[in-house]
Amino acid sequence: MRRDRILLATTLMVVFTADLYFVLLPKLQDFRRGQGSRCSCGQANSSLPGQGGLASPWLSGSTGYPRDSTEGDPEDGGSKLGRLFAHPLYNIQTPTLGPEERLLQAGKLIDYYDKKVSRWERHMVLYNEAAGASNVTMTQQKVNFDPEVSWLKFHLGINRYSLYSRDDPAVEQLLRDMHTLPIISTDYTQDEKALKGVCDCEQVVKPSGHHLKLALKMKDFGKAMFKPMRQQRDEVPSEDVFYFVDFQRHNAEIAAFHLDRILDFRRVPPAVGRLVNITGEVLHITHNQDLRNVFFTSPAKNTCFFSKCLYVCKTEYAVCGRPDALEGSLSAYLPRLSQAPRVSIPSPWIRSYTFDGRRDWEVNPFYCDTIKQTYPYNSGNRLLNIIDMSVFDFLMGNMDRHHYELFTNFGDEGFLLHLDNARGFGRPSEDVMSILAPLTQCCVIKRSTLLRLRLLSRPRYRLSDVMRESLGGDPLRPILTEPHLLALDRRLRRVLEEVERCVMQLGEEQVVTADFARSTDPPPAATT
Amino acid sequence: MRRDRILLATTLMVVFTADLYFVLLPKLQDFRRGQGSRCSCGQANSSLPGQGGLASPWLSGSTGYPRDSTEGDPEDGGSKLGRLFAHPLYNIQTPTLGPEERLLQAGKLIDYYDKKVSRWERHMVLYNEAAGASNVTMTQQKVNFDPEVSWLKFHLGINRYSLYSRDDPAVEQLLRDMHTLPIISTDYTQDEKALKGVCDCEQVVKPSGHHLKLALKMKDFGKAMFKPMRQQRDEVPSEDVFYFVDFQRHNAEIAAFHLDRILDFRRVPPAVGRLVNITGEVLHITHNQDLRNVFFTSPAKNTCFFSKCLYVCKTEYAVCGRPDALEGSLSAYLPRLSQAPRVSIPSPWIRSYTFDGRRDWEVNPFYCDTIKQTYPYNSGNRLLNIIDMSVFDFLMGNMDRHHYELFTNFGDEGFLLHLDNARGFGRPSEDVMSILAPLTQCCVIKRSTLLRLRLLSRPRYRLSDVMRESLGGDPLRPILTEPHLLALDRRLRRVLEEVERCVMQLGEEQVVTADFARSTDPPPAATT
Repeated sequence: MRRDRILLATTLMVVFTADLYFVLLPKLQDFRRGQGSRCSCGQANSSLPGQGGLASPWLSGSTGYPRDSTEGDPEDGGSKLGRLFAHPLYNIQTPTLGPEERLLQAGKLIDYYDKKVSRWERHMVLYNEAAGASNVTMTQQKVNFDPEVSWLKFHLGINRYSLYSRDDPAVEQLLRDMHTLPIISTDYTQDEKALKGVCDCEQVVKPSGHHLKLALKMKDFGKAMFKPMRQQRDEVPSEDVFYFVDFQRHNAEIAAFHLDRILDFRRVPPAVGRLVNITGEVLHITHNQDLRNVFFTSPAKNTCFFSKCLYVCKTEYAVCGRPDALEGSLSAYLPRLSQAPRVSIPSPWIRSYTFDGRRDWEVNPFYCDTIKQTYPYNSGNRLLNIIDMSVFDFLMGNMDRHHYELFTNFGDEGFLLHLDNARGFGRPSEDVMSILAPLTQCCVIKRSTLLRLRLLSRPRYRLSDVMRESLGGDPLRPILTEPHLLALDRRLRRVLEEVERCVMQLGEEQVVTADFARSTDPPPAATT
Repeated sequence: MRRDRILLATTLMVVFTADLYFVLLPKLQDFRRGQGSRCSCGQANSSLPGQGGLASPWLSGSTGYPRDSTEGDPEDGGSKLGRLFAHPLYNIQTPTLGPEERLLQAGKLIDYYDKKVSRWERHMVLYNEAAGASNVTMTQQKVNFDPEVSWLKFHLGINRYSLYSRDDPAVEQLLRDMHTLPIISTDYTQDEKALKGVCDCEQVVKPSGHHLKLALKMKDFGKAMFKPMRQQRDEVPSEDVFYFVDFQRHNAEIAAFHLDRILDFRRVPPAVGRLVNITGEVLHITHNQDLRNVFFTSPAKNTCFFSKCLYVCKTEYAVCGRPDALEGSLSAYLPRLSQAPRVSIPSPWIRSYTFDGRRDWEVNPFYCDTIKQTYPYNSGNRLLNIIDMSVFDFLMGNMDRHHYELFTNFGDEGFLLHLDNARGFGRPSEDVMSILAPLTQCCVIKRSTLLRLRLLSRPRYRLSDVMRESLGGDPLRPILTEPHLLALDRRLRRVLEEVERCVMQLGEEQVVTADFARSTDPPPAATT
């Protein structure tokens, strides 16, 4: 409990300082500037919900866009990303974690990994004999047990606050390892296998591209989900394509990891780009004959593969290397469900996934009142976490968040995992306001989230700039085109405007929720 | 027989004049220019097959590229298309046709049409009652029987030489009618209906796009096949896409009609572009509930429809209006199979339609020797007709000519119909030499075809220019982009080079076949 109290005190200090700096100071300066601008605000206020109030000077001030001289030169050189991560808001001390606040026990995981390595070595002998007998090309890799590997550290670092800590060196190492380590085995992912034998289009909402992802096992036994490139960086999906049949974009998967980290959520598993040789690093090392069977050579002599469900008649859906090299995103696997069970819950703001269906939230302006009274959204942080996620999804334009997942170990108060982000970053010119419905309908937001959003809206820490810098570290840079990066700034402004609209309607106390204190509640007993 | 003799005499006169002008005159001029150029020809000859001999002056002369002063200014204004159609080669008099040389008897067809109009009027009363009862929007059109309609004249004009005569005014009228007349009814085409209930991807080689075509009935009871726009004019299919899953291009269907007419084959049914309102002119007037069911509104509020076979999971394959207007090609229907039976025969140069299969013709350099000894290619014009078709397909880059059709009424010597050309005009930068295999492997070509190809390779009648002019008359102009038009000239040169290569190997007598005389053989008795 003493640790909690120290954390509470530190947190409140930071919140107070930030509040003073971002909210009170600009308001005081506004006040000193006199009546002129106040007048225009008065006019703007009445028409705000309709106009969005983008150009209102009062809004500019209070949404974190102070243009005062204390800002300094926004282009004063140096790393904006470094400056962001050095900011007090990104340096709130996390308490030392007790064993019940960690997702996994080191001993169990290391034992499991050790056994897997031994079994792999035994199986490889058999596989090689079988491959030799059936004349199949098979590349073999030596594997070793090493308790210092990055994926193990990543798994052991997952705790009740986030998937990884801000300064965890294992994350950077994991990105490097996923990019460089030899791949020793490839297979369909579990959800692909679950579909085996039931490739019925009528029953699957979104088969296109969806099932082209693969599970890659690296030499250090780390696993990554591979999503191949389906679309050029500057291609924009047709406006007539429904979100649920849109391509999955490997670069969106990578950009989502960076955006989530910059928003300080840390709920997206590390993701990195890699140029994969689909012949040598996929076809020749898979033990799955079904997977081998979907490879073919295109008329242009490139190696291609397609989804099993769309066999023969759907080679348009195939992806092809040039001639073997194919870009893709590699996302770190989370611990196995047997080690760390997760639950998948439909989002209360799920879309209808049909041509013309409409969900209650789309037609009922008081939808959130019902949700607020419904378990598990009627207490704790769950609704605020949903709203965090909606801000994250709105910034990248991802309409496809039908479910969310959380680790059952951390009970109802666990953080929401932001998995499967490949349908983000589609149309940079469009702001899909309905993605923000949880925020705009409920009019609540965590104070910590709001403060970070305001920070990122300032020229010194401008979201597009820190994203550009962060993505510049990926091997497949550039990950996002400029229109996508600039869309982030525009959308961020719209989020802050929506918050401002709520504050004006309901008052800051109703809207902006002090969340830091709550997150230090003792963790509930694990449910599994 | 007398008529035949007149035709034979006229034809031989024209051939002789053309030969004199295109072959003998340039050769004489070459000779007069002295030894210099002859020397370089001697060198070029030995390496011709390998190099293609594109730059050889001797080839230039004999492939119809004389650059002598008698050519006149190639850009001397006026209509090149008019000049082409005024050329003697395009003015060989067709004999008066006997009744057995026409496809249809006027009386029978007019009776049939009259009955259809009466039945339509009766049915419309019933449909309107049913539509009113089930609250379905139904647009009604008054129809009249009129023996002067253009589609009727087109059908009655089909004869043993071609689908239409060069100067038939009914063709221009038919194009105008298909473009402007109200559409009174829409439905799936017969082959679409034949698939009903067996939408099994594994059994259909090429379902994509293939089944989005519709049958439109016009106010004058003429019928047209509608192929909607799937691709922008400047879009180029990926090199990894197999020809048999390539999109069907409405503009290729239109351009193919013009190309076929310019080549003087006249074996493609008239085709014209039209901006169709898919709500008012398709959805609201169809009596087919299945067709109504595939319409939906896209996220961008456009009206769209998709193929029944690809229901739900394949809305990516849908086509959409803006919001209702959709470009498409309208190709005139041929007479019903019950009136004029046709037979569909696999091309001897059919492709394998699998990922890696290879047909005999692709690996056996002596394939044509076998074909030449096989019925129906061992006598008559059939092989020469196939070679005409391969030249036509090569010029537009159409790899999808798996079958050809002919009217059984005209027996073995009937002309080949050049139907279904929508997979032409894909990649303008590529010349798919394998399409020319019938010509390059058999080394024969009709003299009449060769003379026209040579004419079209001359600046005065340049193929790209006459095509540009001809396509300029279509309501959806421009139909082809400049790269596609210029590709025609390049490909035409390659055809002439291949003929030249054959002539050098085998001599002109072996290669260039006098076809005019043969086409005046008396028609065989109708087989059905």
